[in-house]
Amino acid sequence: MVNQVQRVDGGWQASKSDSSGASNSGGESSKESSRCSTPVLDADRTDRLRDKMRRRMESGDHWFSLEFFPPRTSSGAVNLISRFDRMGSGGPLFIDITWHPAGDPGSDKETSSMMIASTAVNYCGLESLLHLTCCNQTKEKITAHLNKAKRLGLKNIMALRGDPMEDRWEEEEGGFSYAVELVKHIRCEFDDYFDICVAGYPTGHPEAESYEDDLRHLKEKVDAGADFIITQLFFRAETFLKFVKDCRAIGITCPILPGIFPIQGYQSLRQLVKLSKLEVPEEITQVIEPIKDNDAAIRNYGIQQAVGMCKVLLESGEVPGLHFYTLNREVATIEVLRQLGLWIEDPRRPLPWAISAHPKRKVEDVRPIFWASRPKSYIYRTQDWDEFPNGRWGNSSSPAFGELNDYYLFYLKSKSSKDDLLQMWGEELMSEESVFEVFTSYITAQPNRGGHKVMCLPWNDDPLAPETNLLKDELEKVNRRGILTINSQPNINGKPSSDPIVGWGPPGGYVFQKAYLEFFTSSENVTALLKVLKKYEPRVNYHIVNVQGKNTTNAHDMQPNAVTWGIFPGREIVQPTVVDPVSFMYWKDEAFALWIEQWAKLYEEESPSRMIIQYIHDNYYLVNLVDNDFPLDNCLWQVIDDMFELLDSPPENLE
Amino acid sequence: MVNQVQRVDGGWQASKSDSSGASNSGGESSKESSRCSTPVLDADRTDRLRDKMRRRMESGDHWFSLEFFPPRTSSGAVNLISRFDRMGSGGPLFIDITWHPAGDPGSDKETSSMMIASTAVNYCGLESLLHLTCCNQTKEKITAHLNKAKRLGLKNIMALRGDPMEDRWEEEEGGFSYAVELVKHIRCEFDDYFDICVAGYPTGHPEAESYEDDLRHLKEKVDAGADFIITQLFFRAETFLKFVKDCRAIGITCPILPGIFPIQGYQSLRQLVKLSKLEVPEEITQVIEPIKDNDAAIRNYGIQQAVGMCKVLLESGEVPGLHFYTLNREVATIEVLRQLGLWIEDPRRPLPWAISAHPKRKVEDVRPIFWASRPKSYIYRTQDWDEFPNGRWGNSSSPAFGELNDYYLFYLKSKSSKDDLLQMWGEELMSEESVFEVFTSYITAQPNRGGHKVMCLPWNDDPLAPETNLLKDELEKVNRRGILTINSQPNINGKPSSDPIVGWGPPGGYVFQKAYLEFFTSSENVTALLKVLKKYEPRVNYHIVNVQGKNTTNAHDMQPNAVTWGIFPGREIVQPTVVDPVSFMYWKDEAFALWIEQWAKLYEEESPSRMIIQYIHDNYYLVNLVDNDFPLDNCLWQVIDDMFELLDSPPENLE
Repeated sequence: MVNQVQRVDGGWQASKSDSSGASNSGGESSKESSRCSTPVLDADRTDRLRDKMRRRMESGDHWFSLEFFPPRTSSGAVNLISRFDRMGSGGPLFIDITWHPAGDPGSDKETSSMMIASTAVNYCGLESLLHLTCCNQTKEKITAHLNKAKRLGLKNIMALRGDPMEDRWEEEEGGFSYAVELVKHIRCEFDDYFDICVAGYPTGHPEAESYEDDLRHLKEKVDAGADFIITQLFFRAETFLKFVKDCRAIGITCPILPGIFPIQGYQSLRQLVKLSKLEVPEEITQVIEPIKDNDAAIRNYGIQQAVGMCKVLLESGEVPGLHFYTLNREVATIEVLRQLGLWIEDPRRPLPWAISAHPKRKVEDVRPIFWASRPKSYIYRTQDWDEFPNGRWGNSSSPAFGELNDYYLFYLKSKSSKDDLLQMWGEELMSEESVFEVFTSYITAQPNRGGHKVMCLPWNDDPLAPETNLLKDELEKVNRRGILTINSQPNINGKPSSDPIVGWGPPGGYVFQKAYLEFFTSSENVTALLKVLKKYEPRVNYHIVNVQGKNTTNAHDMQPNAVTWGIFPGREIVQPTVVDPVSFMYWKDEAFALWIEQWAKLYEEESPSRMIIQYIHDNYYLVNLVDNDFPLDNCLWQVIDDMFELLDSPPENLE
Repeated sequence: MVNQVQRVDGGWQASKSDSSGASNSGGESSKESSRCSTPVLDADRTDRLRDKMRRRMESGDHWFSLEFFPPRTSSGAVNLISRFDRMGSGGPLFIDITWHPAGDPGSDKETSSMMIASTAVNYCGLESLLHLTCCNQTKEKITAHLNKAKRLGLKNIMALRGDPMEDRWEEEEGGFSYAVELVKHIRCEFDDYFDICVAGYPTGHPEAESYEDDLRHLKEKVDAGADFIITQLFFRAETFLKFVKDCRAIGITCPILPGIFPIQGYQSLRQLVKLSKLEVPEEITQVIEPIKDNDAAIRNYGIQQAVGMCKVLLESGEVPGLHFYTLNREVATIEVLRQLGLWIEDPRRPLPWAISAHPKRKVEDVRPIFWASRPKSYIYRTQDWDEFPNGRWGNSSSPAFGELNDYYLFYLKSKSSKDDLLQMWGEELMSEESVFEVFTSYITAQPNRGGHKVMCLPWNDDPLAPETNLLKDELEKVNRRGILTINSQPNINGKPSSDPIVGWGPPGGYVFQKAYLEFFTSSENVTALLKVLKKYEPRVNYHIVNVQGKNTTNAHDMQPNAVTWGIFPGREIVQPTVVDPVSFMYWKDEAFALWIEQWAKLYEEESPSRMIIQYIHDNYYLVNLVDNDFPLDNCLWQVIDDMFELLDSPPENLE
């Protein structure tokens, strides 16, 4: 007798989802099944939000989610997107973006709710829930918002009534007066496309006739098609637990997530309490009134209070996940999550690059290495693609890359101000060597002549990645001499997929890399380099191109070279990063343009500094090198050494 | 100034084809190019015969080709196919199959020219040239033959007039009288689809008015569209070299391949000379007449004479390749080729499995491991597929496998006779243990009780592969105890692609394998095995199935597990072998049926021997195991040891 054995998975959350893979397909049944359409590693990428919740509840994994409001200003938008990247690394199940009717929330403005949510999904890879209020809006307007949200890749809507504008309540002709009508409308117009969340009020909605009446309204919203509930904030665990009990008693069975508000300051508490018409319990006012002018003390108390309450909630067994009202701040929420053990300190990467959460991109599992430090630009330039290279890059008949003329877009623009950039990259450049020094300072993380640390370069928005740090000494040496590196990776010969620096993918696997080096350098250097590279055939593949597109290579002109791959238990090979000769020509345009768009334009026209950058742009070559012999020591540094040796030798050697 | 650098390839022939990959794509030109449709490793697979010849001539690599005639009998066909496999391993550029008008050459009979050529292409992976004669045939009949050849995957035709039937010359109404008309007809009806070869006569066609007249006829055939020439046999190098010179003089520029006839016996020489109306030069008759009854001596002389002549030809610089009239024999031709250094002793494998030469399969680069020892059956069962899994197995929406009911087909049937099989597998089986002994004898290559070596099993047509030999000791041990192994591979952690035993693919790469073991075993063993396997989660993946299809697995039910892959310079990852859960259910049917079709049916119905095999078929399970931890020591033997330990322990452990 053969017993069915359930697959036992390791602790990696994404892998858990596969436990349904244990199968007992009797007889001919397997003949019926069509092949899987994609070998995606991580079921989390393909599931919808409610399925992710279900799986997490089944496995007993608590989750958290984070609420943000749209920023007021363009620089606020840039900062919020960086915050998404940082807070996303802690592992929220989703984030949500509130809807501000006064702020043109459905528009294309970079500060709109719609654009912020879209950026979170597309560029930050975060599962996102967009709020939508229905009062004072026509049905058509609402449908238009929903259509736009769908087009942008948003899959989850928090359906709210919203507050009347300017405290006056006017029923919109042909519009909706209640959230339940909005839920019905979404289900009617968009069927099952969206996951829908509705609001719950643990102490009853302030305008409801009674607590019981409000519960009945909530039940109606769930019956109309809502998938889960997030509650208004509250100050005592028992308030929420009673509410859940009452909900269950009248037949509400969906997940109910408590809204947690860590008190972060006296003023913000007062304001929120006023808006939400809540009463702060005496045990809290007693503590904070005496310290109301001491921000740090209040924040510490808020953290402590929230942690205590959350612990009670989680231990009750009634709470699958916690929802945090962050007020767009990081410290308090992260500290609460850390103390609860919910913040992921060392996030596992499903792939070496951060994936996008747009449904269209959920099968995406390979990208060219060139955009490794500019993933948002890659996503932007491929946003119109209908399908994504899926498995083999070479198989895709992908449409062309979009032009990159929109450097001003808030998710593409540098996080630093012009003044900061000038301090980092030089108020005044004296020569090409001044540029070499900027690159060197970036690599070494040492202050430049002016005493400023170079935290970014036009091709690298962030300081050196931990992985690149492995190559720091070699990179410093070559940048000093004008090998201006913009991208590199060390060779890796089968490190565990759990490796904290280079690991990615499910546990129990092994990851590999070929050494890669990409840099700008002068045409004199390139002449010597090409002589040297002949000695490294066929071990080293290269592409060398100038701004005019003059391209020299020893690689096949269509065949990509896989430079990162992973081998996992029970899987096909995954090769998420390639050196692709076709897309290199598109990257070349972008890489050269960044000299001008981000650097040269910091200086006056005709100024010597600008002319130096323009000279480099016009005359340097962009070079990429791959060392195919990944089990041996990386030979690319030797290639560069040989090149300098040749340059330093008597000139006849260069003939 | 950047110079264009030509790619320098290593000695591997398939790789050379890529030298066209060195590119200098200026400006925007790369934006025009569509992506490559397939990452095939070996350009030889995609090129047509004339392009292969051109590349070999450009690189100065001499080639050889082999001529065979169709067999008379069904068992002759089985033998000839084995000979194709053996002689194919020496690396002929192509083989050709003669056309015997008297033998129903275009029919579906297993001895027909058409079926032999089709088998060579589809099942043996050999580039093949099918002869076709035109005399005594209608145009329609000829077109039908050509259509059939095209449908079967044949791409090359040798266009001949042929000899009149029974020595009478009757012009066919509406038919062709000359080969030139056949060439024109092929080009007219099939455009450029076929590569066409025509015959050349170094001493002039016996029926031609003159040598010069015959040369003019040859020029007409080439002008009509022939791509290359193979000559009639000759005995002196200078005969051929003069002929080539005369051809070039009148403007014939295509390749001209000398037909080499190693003298193999007195009678065959006499017969051939009579048929071809050639004269044997005196220097040869003087040698062979005195030794005409000594076959060995004549063969030795023939080898020596052919080698000497071929050396002169090759050294002349006029001969790109040699064409051998093998007379369907191996020894003499192989010996000549060995002495010339043209026979490939250690053939490089482009992929771990032998590829098919059917044009439809030229992109095929992944197969399930199950058919590793029965590749012809795999090709047969997938012959109706429109496209082949190309890159990722899982991505393919492949049609179902064809049924395997045609065990009698000559390319699927056992090479051994029923008597031989009974001697190997037992005239009379006493118990299941008798079967264990057969498996053990096969593994050890030691004679069985009856003194006969077990050279094959129903699942393995050939003796143990060199790679499997690496596992011989372990395999012997477990087969003795009823783990009846039918397929296995050791784990390999990055051996050079040039490794003589496990290497494959272009040079400079690294190959990898996960350890794999597949066997039949009793349900008692399976019960213990499943208990043991829990300890090996998630390191070991398994599929366990009985003849009814009751399937137990800890693997995803759609996701294949790559078990052989290679990493090469400038390439994407190649993963040619997978454990695919979907196709395993089709393989299971075949693997169980082979017990009955090939083994049980050797015995009388109701006989004890037959009932023992039937019992195994009905009650045993087919198990496959993959050790995912390829960098560590193979743990599958430990799994089996643990299983036996559990079985040997007190029974309560098995509860």
